[in-house]
Amino acid sequence: MVFPRKIKGFRDIDHGLNSLRWHIIEKATEIYKRFGFEHWDSPTLEYAETLGKYLPEADEVVDGVYSFKNPEIEPQFNDKGTELRDKSNNVLMTNHHLTMRYDLTAPLARMYSELIWQKFMHNQVQEGKADLFRRFQFGPVYRFEAKLDPGRFREFWQIDFDTVGSDSVATDAENCMILSDALENIGIKKGEYIIKLNNRKIIKGFLESIGVKSEQDADVMRVIDKLDKIGITGVTEELGKGRKDEKSGAFITGLGLNKKISDGIEKFLVSFDTNQTRKKILESLSSLKIDNEIYVQGLAELLEIDAILEKTGYDEQTVIIDPSMIRGMGYYTGPIFEAEYLGTYKDAKGQKRKVGSICGGGRYDGLVENLIGLKVPASGASIGVDRLAEIMTLTGKVPQLIDGPVFIVNFDDHLMPEYQKIASDLRKEGLEVEIYYGAKKGLKQQLSYADKKNCTLAIIIGEDEFNKGVATVKNLKLGKELADKISDKKEWTSKVQKEIKVDKLVKEIQKML
Amino acid sequence: MVFPRKIKGFRDIDHGLNSLRWHIIEKATEIYKRFGFEHWDSPTLEYAETLGKYLPEADEVVDGVYSFKNPEIEPQFNDKGTELRDKSNNVLMTNHHLTMRYDLTAPLARMYSELIWQKFMHNQVQEGKADLFRRFQFGPVYRFEAKLDPGRFREFWQIDFDTVGSDSVATDAENCMILSDALENIGIKKGEYIIKLNNRKIIKGFLESIGVKSEQDADVMRVIDKLDKIGITGVTEELGKGRKDEKSGAFITGLGLNKKISDGIEKFLVSFDTNQTRKKILESLSSLKIDNEIYVQGLAELLEIDAILEKTGYDEQTVIIDPSMIRGMGYYTGPIFEAEYLGTYKDAKGQKRKVGSICGGGRYDGLVENLIGLKVPASGASIGVDRLAEIMTLTGKVPQLIDGPVFIVNFDDHLMPEYQKIASDLRKEGLEVEIYYGAKKGLKQQLSYADKKNCTLAIIIGEDEFNKGVATVKNLKLGKELADKISDKKEWTSKVQKEIKVDKLVKEIQKML
Repeated sequence: MVFPRKIKGFRDIDHGLNSLRWHIIEKATEIYKRFGFEHWDSPTLEYAETLGKYLPEADEVVDGVYSFKNPEIEPQFNDKGTELRDKSNNVLMTNHHLTMRYDLTAPLARMYSELIWQKFMHNQVQEGKADLFRRFQFGPVYRFEAKLDPGRFREFWQIDFDTVGSDSVATDAENCMILSDALENIGIKKGEYIIKLNNRKIIKGFLESIGVKSEQDADVMRVIDKLDKIGITGVTEELGKGRKDEKSGAFITGLGLNKKISDGIEKFLVSFDTNQTRKKILESLSSLKIDNEIYVQGLAELLEIDAILEKTGYDEQTVIIDPSMIRGMGYYTGPIFEAEYLGTYKDAKGQKRKVGSICGGGRYDGLVENLIGLKVPASGASIGVDRLAEIMTLTGKVPQLIDGPVFIVNFDDHLMPEYQKIASDLRKEGLEVEIYYGAKKGLKQQLSYADKKNCTLAIIIGEDEFNKGVATVKNLKLGKELADKISDKKEWTSKVQKEIKVDKLVKEIQKML
Repeated sequence: MVFPRKIKGFRDIDHGLNSLRWHIIEKATEIYKRFGFEHWDSPTLEYAETLGKYLPEADEVVDGVYSFKNPEIEPQFNDKGTELRDKSNNVLMTNHHLTMRYDLTAPLARMYSELIWQKFMHNQVQEGKADLFRRFQFGPVYRFEAKLDPGRFREFWQIDFDTVGSDSVATDAENCMILSDALENIGIKKGEYIIKLNNRKIIKGFLESIGVKSEQDADVMRVIDKLDKIGITGVTEELGKGRKDEKSGAFITGLGLNKKISDGIEKFLVSFDTNQTRKKILESLSSLKIDNEIYVQGLAELLEIDAILEKTGYDEQTVIIDPSMIRGMGYYTGPIFEAEYLGTYKDAKGQKRKVGSICGGGRYDGLVENLIGLKVPASGASIGVDRLAEIMTLTGKVPQLIDGPVFIVNFDDHLMPEYQKIASDLRKEGLEVEIYYGAKKGLKQQLSYADKKNCTLAIIIGEDEFNKGVATVKNLKLGKELADKISDKKEWTSKVQKEIKVDKLVKEIQKML
């Protein structure tokens, strides 16, 4: 005998949450397809080394991912795919490390690299002319976070779309359009969210212009990324000498930039009012007269994206430019975008809380290069399905509960073939019908089961009804609605329940639904 | 740099195969829902002990599954869910074994047990009165088969439906109806498949009647299960003294049943003509006058199922009774059913091959008992999604290839906002539209990309067209159809290509699709 339980951080998903999860997946993928993306899938499990980043160094599971040794012993390969051999020319064998995918981007890099591998090995892939590949994918990803914050999970679903092999920033414009269309198709209305657009090249060019060394870029951006959390004063302090964290009292060492530079960054960050039109912000960016190559390029790209968004009607109600928006991940190289949910919710303590970012993405031209050394431009975005489902639940945005099936009460086992015939006739019309098979056969117990499943109607046929050729049909849904309004039991019953001839049942029930 | 590759036995699923996979999932779940099943999900990873069967004994990954130690150290529990402690009252900690699910049934047992656990611990669950739970679930499962036969995979998808907590064989009748409806909804027509129905109780009762000891039942059934492969002579030999395998020449030791018994089994197995009506076969089973309890019960159950199938119109074109059908798995306890695909296909060597079983299920009343010791009746079935997809491909049953998006040729980067506007207008009507973003910009290369994606129409606008306010629209789909029929290039072009004013584009393209 065993104590039945799930692994900590893993969940069973019930019918209700599953409905919401698949609502999000269906509505988002409908939009992804509308922009020409194909549905591809990759395995849940991959060789650890092909996923990069989390390469296990010892024989142990490494922090952050679920990783283990392949039970199969296999040849070792060099980076050209040639088997390694020892001095006696025997193939070197090993149990490779396997990792459960921690996102859908690393497997995309492996998949794309594999698709072009033969051509690449035969020098038939020109840099800058790699094959175009546009796919979406959804499914669970796995993170082993040693400390599991409340509301965080170790298995959660993502839904990604990516364009690999295009350096056109028109794809970045499109990515903003896709996120916007997807969110609205899911049920988040215009005005309830905003997409923030920026370009890493703008930040980089600006930092270069005020004398930040390029090797410090990543650190500076990591600090700027905290703007929402610690405010502009905190950012400026952390760029310079450091600051004392208000909550913990701990001192956080600063980057040690000189005051002129940190003041310059502060000035840059506060100088844009994101309520302004994109045109105005682009003008401000232009008026800074920064003339290094990367800044000029970054600005030109934003102008190009803006022109496309304007032409296609995605105005400032949908996409704004926010030059202070960074996005955490280190691998972005160009345009970045992030959808912020503008609503608030009340947390467990009843406090109002901002939702913040719900999805985003950007251009990451190092994707394939990190794996096989070939520069291939790429841009894409990801919606955290479970995170969005949670936010929709917290903010009351969940679409109407799905109606359960029509319910046939099992009053008398001997009438089972009759119940089956009725169910079968109704199903032929496409209706969802459930006959009760439970062991607890009391009418109350049966109707309580139907209630839990949100059933719309209950069909009741006992011996008497059967002999008369009728069925009692109870409108469970209407019954619930009227329960508060009508206190008189007789009146309630007369509205909610009626007798219908069995041979009229299909038509009458179709009318009632 | 890394050699990019997948783990052996794992696959990337391309757009085409994914379309087929999701066609099967959608069409099957549509039917499952129509019978009142809810969509629940369980994690991919579970504590090994809760999945039973493949419990790792050592610290090693065990044959048959992917299993590894949880990176997290956690308390040990007894089977009541109480933490174990040492003599000093310290909680005993361990890294539990985790297993990637090898099917969807074992996690169902864990999930159901967990759902009723509190009530069960407080003695509020009466045996025979356990809660009714009906769910469907789909997703990948994992098997580490050391020897991987061609066409077999270590990650593959299943789609299960199960009724837990009902001993009514009406659910078994329903399961046959569901498999039939699901297969037809997927596109396998009546006459192309047949569902075979049997009852383990019939076999068991018969074996008891001729003197087979109940502890030999499983072995005998394992041999009978080979009937399709080794024929009736092979089965009789293997029940008795053994036989020489024709292909390998190896001698297979028999069960050593005496001749009277093995002859009796042979007689039973060949005495039913499955072309007969279910009524006739039930009469034959009845005429054997076997009067032990299990046989009588098994026959009564088949009669009940037959009555329901007859009443609902599932005749012998859909469901037959085959008393020699066993199904491999040891855990079935009552009615079993299996859909056989009647078509053939040609294998790689051009030889005609029978497809055989494509899905099935049965009653397994030990499901929950094996885990927590509570008897809860259950019945369900599973469709192997990837296996069915493969068979549909092999037998040419794949539904029409899905049309790709409308394709907008990128002739001139400066016209990108115009392309975007056109795409946006078309998408607003729900059309799928892709603008070409690839690095290889030749018209031929662009159209070759569109061809690979099965695009229906191509919209071509260059500088000339733009100045005239027109677009050239090429009907790629029609073009392919006419390519064989029309050899004159001019005539072909006149049928396949036309100039359309940009402001009429949406309407004209809707007409063309």
